Amino acid sequence: MQKELDFYLSARKKLCALNYASFLIEWDMQTEAPDNSITANSEQSAVLSEMRYRITTDPEFKRCVDALYEQRDKLDAVLCHEIEVVHKDIVNTAKIPVEEYSAFSELTSKAYPVYVRAKKENNFALFRPYLEKIVEYCRKQTKWLATDKISGYDVLLDIYEPNYTQEKYDKFFNVLREKLVPFVHSVTARPAPLPEWAKGRFDKEKQRVFCEYVRDVMCFDKTRGVMKESEHPFTSGFGTDDVRITTHYYEDNLVSAIFSVIHETGHATYEQQVDRSLNGTLCGGGASLGMHESQSRFYENIVGRSSAFWKVHFPKLQQLFARELKDVTTEDFVGYINRAEASFVRTEADELTYPLHIMLRYETEQKLINGELEVRDLPDFWNAKFTEYFGITPPNDTLGVLQDVHWAYGNFGYFPTYALGSAIASQLYDAMSKDFDVEASLSDGTTKQINLWLKEHVHKYGASKYPDEILRLATGEDLDPDHYVNYLIAKYSNKAMG
Amino acid sequence: MQKELDFYLSARKKLCALNYASFLIEWDMQTEAPDNSITANSEQSAVLSEMRYRITTDPEFKRCVDALYEQRDKLDAVLCHEIEVVHKDIVNTAKIPVEEYSAFSELTSKAYPVYVRAKKENNFALFRPYLEKIVEYCRKQTKWLATDKISGYDVLLDIYEPNYTQEKYDKFFNVLREKLVPFVHSVTARPAPLPEWAKGRFDKEKQRVFCEYVRDVMCFDKTRGVMKESEHPFTSGFGTDDVRITTHYYEDNLVSAIFSVIHETGHATYEQQVDRSLNGTLCGGGASLGMHESQSRFYENIVGRSSAFWKVHFPKLQQLFARELKDVTTEDFVGYINRAEASFVRTEADELTYPLHIMLRYETEQKLINGELEVRDLPDFWNAKFTEYFGITPPNDTLGVLQDVHWAYGNFGYFPTYALGSAIASQLYDAMSKDFDVEASLSDGTTKQINLWLKEHVHKYGASKYPDEILRLATGEDLDPDHYVNYLIAKYSNKAMG
Repeated sequence: MQKELDFYLSARKKLCALNYASFLIEWDMQTEAPDNSITANSEQSAVLSEMRYRITTDPEFKRCVDALYEQRDKLDAVLCHEIEVVHKDIVNTAKIPVEEYSAFSELTSKAYPVYVRAKKENNFALFRPYLEKIVEYCRKQTKWLATDKISGYDVLLDIYEPNYTQEKYDKFFNVLREKLVPFVHSVTARPAPLPEWAKGRFDKEKQRVFCEYVRDVMCFDKTRGVMKESEHPFTSGFGTDDVRITTHYYEDNLVSAIFSVIHETGHATYEQQVDRSLNGTLCGGGASLGMHESQSRFYENIVGRSSAFWKVHFPKLQQLFARELKDVTTEDFVGYINRAEASFVRTEADELTYPLHIMLRYETEQKLINGELEVRDLPDFWNAKFTEYFGITPPNDTLGVLQDVHWAYGNFGYFPTYALGSAIASQLYDAMSKDFDVEASLSDGTTKQINLWLKEHVHKYGASKYPDEILRLATGEDLDPDHYVNYLIAKYSNKAMG
Repeated sequence: MQKELDFYLSARKKLCALNYASFLIEWDMQTEAPDNSITANSEQSAVLSEMRYRITTDPEFKRCVDALYEQRDKLDAVLCHEIEVVHKDIVNTAKIPVEEYSAFSELTSKAYPVYVRAKKENNFALFRPYLEKIVEYCRKQTKWLATDKISGYDVLLDIYEPNYTQEKYDKFFNVLREKLVPFVHSVTARPAPLPEWAKGRFDKEKQRVFCEYVRDVMCFDKTRGVMKESEHPFTSGFGTDDVRITTHYYEDNLVSAIFSVIHETGHATYEQQVDRSLNGTLCGGGASLGMHESQSRFYENIVGRSSAFWKVHFPKLQQLFARELKDVTTEDFVGYINRAEASFVRTEADELTYPLHIMLRYETEQKLINGELEVRDLPDFWNAKFTEYFGITPPNDTLGVLQDVHWAYGNFGYFPTYALGSAIASQLYDAMSKDFDVEASLSDGTTKQINLWLKEHVHKYGASKYPDEILRLATGEDLDPDHYVNYLIAKYSNKAMG
């Protein structure tokens, strides 16, 4: 097996180097590359991707992975997991007819600009024929990739969050539907008005100072990371020693940049705290989309929107914006950042109503992929369900079924991971609270103790285990939506009663 | 030949993509990468370099290049030139014994930190054994790579500036030694004192505003380029659509950043004005180190240090630094930026004395490589020659023979290209002046007409011709040092006369 292992490790080295190059190219394009260079250089990215593709589809590489997979019990636990994941990728790739895959790539690249136009012009009919073909492909995909364990929509869910099937998600969303929908109705029936002070203008330079302060509060290691600006905030990186985040400052919104920095630093803390021995393997970084999102949301919502956090840090913010926040108390501020109201657009939704947006998408995708709903009926289905969950009806498809780009890319199965993230965060919070008083730990001015707990129970594993396995290790149980629902109801109950 | 051509073009695509990745990695490391990521990620760069190496040393690649080289007359002119250059590289690489090359790489990577320490501690003896081995390797290299046309030091010169041999350089430096050395003595005997106003502090933000103004005066295309800060100013890029420059602002120096921006924008203008059809070939970018340096120096010295330039732009500078430059006239300022004095350090030398620094290095390298000088005698030789040319004696080796890093890297033959750049610039200036009044053209507030001339006569060719060929096309003659010497003497004569 040594020969196969050597070949595999040598190929992995190249894959890692190409991954590093791709990370930097993407980072550069999002933050700094001159406008006209982007089209010119996208060809180079395509060539590098092809080099990557050729390494993983090389018959000798496949033979070596097969051989290692057969004897994976003899490998150390991390490599065993890695080989399992790589083997599954190879098997799945081989199941998709090459000509179908190429046609689909072409279809989605054509669909994207049509989607953009359809959204802009509120014209679902324009996008409909493309979406029909995309759904058709995804339905075929579920047949190609079906195994003795998973079929239908499960196949797509598994791509984004391994081992999370409809059985788990159904249970999860059923609890949300039963317990959260009525609660949301009662809260959002009487939305708190936007306070006058929040409608002002807030100097970007001061926002930057506070965001850098928050980043330091969260112990982001600047010798192993960078914070920069970009149009849309994001986190990227390579290994534990190069983790980069961005934010975007809006002069008419005091808190947008702050919460995006807390969110992205949550992602970054995960990456920086992975065990360094996983650098150079394919088991670095986060365990899954859902697990990654659980960390960003843990810091953003559970920590960053808590009274305990702002009791310590609001004075600093008030000092920077002395005039603007003169008459604002910590309680006013915490109330403001935890306002809840029914709204049409997922990406602008608050913590409480957010999961209902995802629930709607989950049900829609499930029915579309399993053949219980057709694309032509999508707007009606969407608007009816939206009205049921939120008590308001989208005035048009732009603010309704056309609002998100994911389906134009063919990404069915991705959305549910967003809600999973928040739910995992709550479950981790309950487990963490058994070990120490989370709110009290914030009084030292940092998130140090929280970081340490998450490192020990989640981060250190990187992607060397499946996300459900890490959740069990960290909390002693499988995903249980009650943690999440109870957390939201407790947090928003004073409002519901108000 | 079609099969060989297809193979070659497919390999070239990968080489270009890897070159793009290397450019971005280097750019990132110099301008933004977090400190601790650099060591961690240098391994990825090494893997990408190895991938590049494997492509060019693949026997099938060599076979195809050989076949194309044999029939290069049938290729279009650009591809014919490219194949000639690539073929020469392959032939040269094959001549160097692999184990010797590896040992040399190891030697220079060990030599570098020793050099740094030796320079810091003014301890030539510490570096001497390493330098002896480096010189020994370079002497062997001249034997391995000798052809029926070139041998000895010529072999090394040819690596950095093809077709420039000792015969040409000797002629060049002989003119400098005879005409320039006595002139420099007369000028630097009575150096102008540093004006009081120049010793102040100059706000970095205002410097930045002026530097961005200068970049626009030079018509740098921002949609195809970026300007940023780094420790040492440099230019890099990929193709005509992605050209990046950096500068460094010093609060105690008003003009350092300005001239580095003019210099780097000179390099960038060259890159941006290469014919776009050369993108994606190996004939993009500048024709050689010397030709590239000729462009940066043309803009920095001939344009940027001229009265004509500052007559137009000094008011803008004065407006920004109203208090600091209150009593300074354009003439005062032009006098200040053209001060000449004998000094020990090449990188801080002025336009007039600079070439003598290079002449000294050229003579030293020539004697070392040709076996007429040994490393043990280097400090004495250096100090004696320095005294002869500059009339002052280095107080120690740190300010003497140890000042430059190039030899620690094993880069013998590189230095002369620096002087070549200035000489080519003067020759181009004389040719340009026959076509239009260069100084008068600046009165429209831009360098547009100069850019256009250089595009048409130099830039558009990229690296699709040899530099000496481009010089002949642009000026109608081979390199003639008289242009350079006459230019310097004319420019500094008012000072010489005192």
